[in-house]
Amino acid sequence: MSHVTSPGLFVSLEGGDGAGKSTQAHKLRDWLVAAGREVVLTREPGGTQLGRTLRDAVLHGEDVDARTEALLYATDRAHHVASLVRPALERGAVVVTDRYLDSSVAYQGSGRDLGADEVERLSMWATGGLLPALTVLLDLDPVEGQRRLTGAPDRLERAGDDFHRRTRQAFLDRAAADPARWLVLDASRGPDELATAVRARVEGLL
Amino acid sequence: MSHVTSPGLFVSLEGGDGAGKSTQAHKLRDWLVAAGREVVLTREPGGTQLGRTLRDAVLHGEDVDARTEALLYATDRAHHVASLVRPALERGAVVVTDRYLDSSVAYQGSGRDLGADEVERLSMWATGGLLPALTVLLDLDPVEGQRRLTGAPDRLERAGDDFHRRTRQAFLDRAAADPARWLVLDASRGPDELATAVRARVEGLL
Repeated sequence: MSHVTSPGLFVSLEGGDGAGKSTQAHKLRDWLVAAGREVVLTREPGGTQLGRTLRDAVLHGEDVDARTEALLYATDRAHHVASLVRPALERGAVVVTDRYLDSSVAYQGSGRDLGADEVERLSMWATGGLLPALTVLLDLDPVEGQRRLTGAPDRLERAGDDFHRRTRQAFLDRAAADPARWLVLDASRGPDELATAVRARVEGLL
Repeated sequence: MSHVTSPGLFVSLEGGDGAGKSTQAHKLRDWLVAAGREVVLTREPGGTQLGRTLRDAVLHGEDVDARTEALLYATDRAHHVASLVRPALERGAVVVTDRYLDSSVAYQGSGRDLGADEVERLSMWATGGLLPALTVLLDLDPVEGQRRLTGAPDRLERAGDDFHRRTRQAFLDRAAADPARWLVLDASRGPDELATAVRARVEGLL
């Protein structure tokens, strides 16, 4: 895995909408910056200009089939990694991304009609095999996540409770299969308590 | 392969820029329509609205690395096949496309830094394994192709003679490896003479 040989640290935040990924990403960033680290805060999809074009195409454009959707996310990811994540890791930064390939595997691989293995293989090819050193799962009951959300729902948010329950389980299963990479937190806890738990794990990796 | 079970006929035209693919596609369409067939004339990249967005991104947008480029073309292809090519074949139409997956294999697989096998595997996944019943290679010396071109050069057109010689050879090698699917024509011959050769081969497939 490429992150092993780079001086930076790659952290991803995963979980359903409304679980507090963005809040935790900012808290982690502030703490790392105060500790003197360069931090790149980013997201998928849409971490680059090309990625924003692709995200708009898949979330708000014409209907696409499952393979096209998986390829759109993989394209976004390939460009994000090549143009932003890898260069940052190589100069020693901490990269904190709001969603990464585990979202694709959970949402497209388990929630829709493609196999999880196929979607993962596609993402691994797209990124040249780059996995985070740490993936934080903010686990939350989908009903609670929906309640927290404001604003207009996009396609995934409209996809229904069953879909959200399947993707939640897919995240939990992936985390259980690779505990060295994952930190699973109960996202119904307070933001400061969650931030403390994230820091404790990140501290051991710096 | 899916085309075998559909009542339509899938034909692709390949070759360098300036080889006359568009001219031959139109001549073939006119002849088939006169014979009473429904014909869908299309192209890659950019046969759909999403595809045109992607083509603009890769040809005229920010610089992308080789994997991102291959994924952009694969995404265009997946959507093109799912939304346009397969439905047309299923209702019995003849689909004639100006470029298909052999262009990706020749241009990205042999011309740039990815392996031809990887690029082909990606395209086969994107299309669910859909191959044309006939692929016509309009083979032309790249220098002659360049001479025929008018208008502003895009990125591929600017990539240099060496690149064009390698992709020409890649097309010829692919054709030699699968003569049942390919028809190789010397594109320096006259357009009507070429059209007659294409018709003769298509006639045997209808």
